[in-house]
Amino acid sequence: MEGHIQIITAIDHMQQQARRLLQTGKTIAFVPTMGYMHEGHLGLVREGREHGDTLIISIFVNPTQFGPAEDFQAYPRDLDRDVRLAASEGVDIIFAPEAEAMYDTAYQTYVDLELLPRYLCSASRPGHFRGVATVVTKLFNIVKPHVAIFGEKDYQQLVIIRRMVRDLHFDIRIIGVPIVREPDGLAMSSRNAYLSEEERESALSLFQAVQQAEKNVAQGVRDASQLIHEASELIRSYPYTKIEYVALCDPETLKNVDRVDGPTLIALAVWVGKTRLIDNTILEPIEN
Amino acid sequence: MEGHIQIITAIDHMQQQARRLLQTGKTIAFVPTMGYMHEGHLGLVREGREHGDTLIISIFVNPTQFGPAEDFQAYPRDLDRDVRLAASEGVDIIFAPEAEAMYDTAYQTYVDLELLPRYLCSASRPGHFRGVATVVTKLFNIVKPHVAIFGEKDYQQLVIIRRMVRDLHFDIRIIGVPIVREPDGLAMSSRNAYLSEEERESALSLFQAVQQAEKNVAQGVRDASQLIHEASELIRSYPYTKIEYVALCDPETLKNVDRVDGPTLIALAVWVGKTRLIDNTILEPIEN
Repeated sequence: MEGHIQIITAIDHMQQQARRLLQTGKTIAFVPTMGYMHEGHLGLVREGREHGDTLIISIFVNPTQFGPAEDFQAYPRDLDRDVRLAASEGVDIIFAPEAEAMYDTAYQTYVDLELLPRYLCSASRPGHFRGVATVVTKLFNIVKPHVAIFGEKDYQQLVIIRRMVRDLHFDIRIIGVPIVREPDGLAMSSRNAYLSEEERESALSLFQAVQQAEKNVAQGVRDASQLIHEASELIRSYPYTKIEYVALCDPETLKNVDRVDGPTLIALAVWVGKTRLIDNTILEPIEN
Repeated sequence: MEGHIQIITAIDHMQQQARRLLQTGKTIAFVPTMGYMHEGHLGLVREGREHGDTLIISIFVNPTQFGPAEDFQAYPRDLDRDVRLAASEGVDIIFAPEAEAMYDTAYQTYVDLELLPRYLCSASRPGHFRGVATVVTKLFNIVKPHVAIFGEKDYQQLVIIRRMVRDLHFDIRIIGVPIVREPDGLAMSSRNAYLSEEERESALSLFQAVQQAEKNVAQGVRDASQLIHEASELIRSYPYTKIEYVALCDPETLKNVDRVDGPTLIALAVWVGKTRLIDNTILEPIEN
């Protein structure tokens, strides 16, 4: 497959190419990424391959979804490696635009949601989901996919994209792909590259807290504050950790719940040293 | 032509139809309207016919662009007449969705611009252009046009749509059509139907103020405050009039200008009785 991959940087070139594909009856599957690909991305890419004649990924570290104090400059980048990985997975086109073309000097249009961005990550990342909804809208209009693939690791993002697609009538099917984990359970993330060896140990606390909550729910615990308390205690027992939130909420509205009475999202954001990590799962109580 | 027009109300049906047209290589021209069509709309429709194999118009009185104290309920509607007029002008498809389908109960996504909506009409109509940008995004995603036609009468709207299309990379060409006027100069508007016979007389003051400004500029007047003052005096000399704004601004950024040193938008909004009317033109100073 390698060698046949096409790299497009110009927006109008990508649009022409997409138009041509649609006119010849091809279906387009799309995986938006910020690059620095790992097994998590490759899971999305493999899923994408099942859903389109042509598989397009974008690689774009989107400035508008980073806060002023966040790691936009430091965010890891390695386009050469990404191209090799994408080619080996049968990606047809990489769309890798320049930030200046995506946001010109008179740029001023944003897509925002009124409710879903207010929960979970938004307290610490104001404007983040506005940046995400906006860049995804732009990428959809450029790449014109039939199907787009997103990871469940960014669960709030996935819920927001699904709602945005319904509200704005994007004629695009959204597919969520389960979290891919390291052998020891750490959720794959480009930001894992920031972790020191000792921090890497503490980073395991996120998945362990998730697993403990699953076990508690299986054993009949339903009270949200008890589940949150125990998860938080577990995380705090590791050095270098600082909890941003541990939340139990409705998987569609993201509103906090008091009890686990049906499928319930447990979502957490934890700083390990200077690295912010997230994890989540859906808790499924089995009534007895 | 009559009888061949197709009326579609379901969003997914319209999307299927658009997809089918694109797959067969047809170009789609689109005229979004709120219905109650007059010669102004027909001008847009005739322009649209020049730009696509298939001509689609939408008829949708969009609730999110009306303020709580505005005339959403009272806005004139006459679908049967609109269908006859559209058919006689060679429209192929009328897309006339229900408000409940366009905005479901969990609806929460909006498209907004940071600067352009702050000028001119926004002081009296907060949220209006957010509603416009949002519904136009939705309609673009449903109708999938190559070309979309808008009237220059709603000049601020046209500027906002153009900017939004650039910023969000809609692969759509936007065409602006000059104002269509009654024989005596009144700009065509569905809201003219609200005017009493006496108010109808006073409504002429808008175009007369515009014409006077053109004459003043032709005679060498460049000072914005003088031009605004004279236009305002003229309007105030008519009964039932109440000026909301008379503004001279840059036709792209909509920022107020002090002097007419190049093509300059004169835009006005005037209440005549209980009816809010707008008018505008581009003043073109000829250097001597």
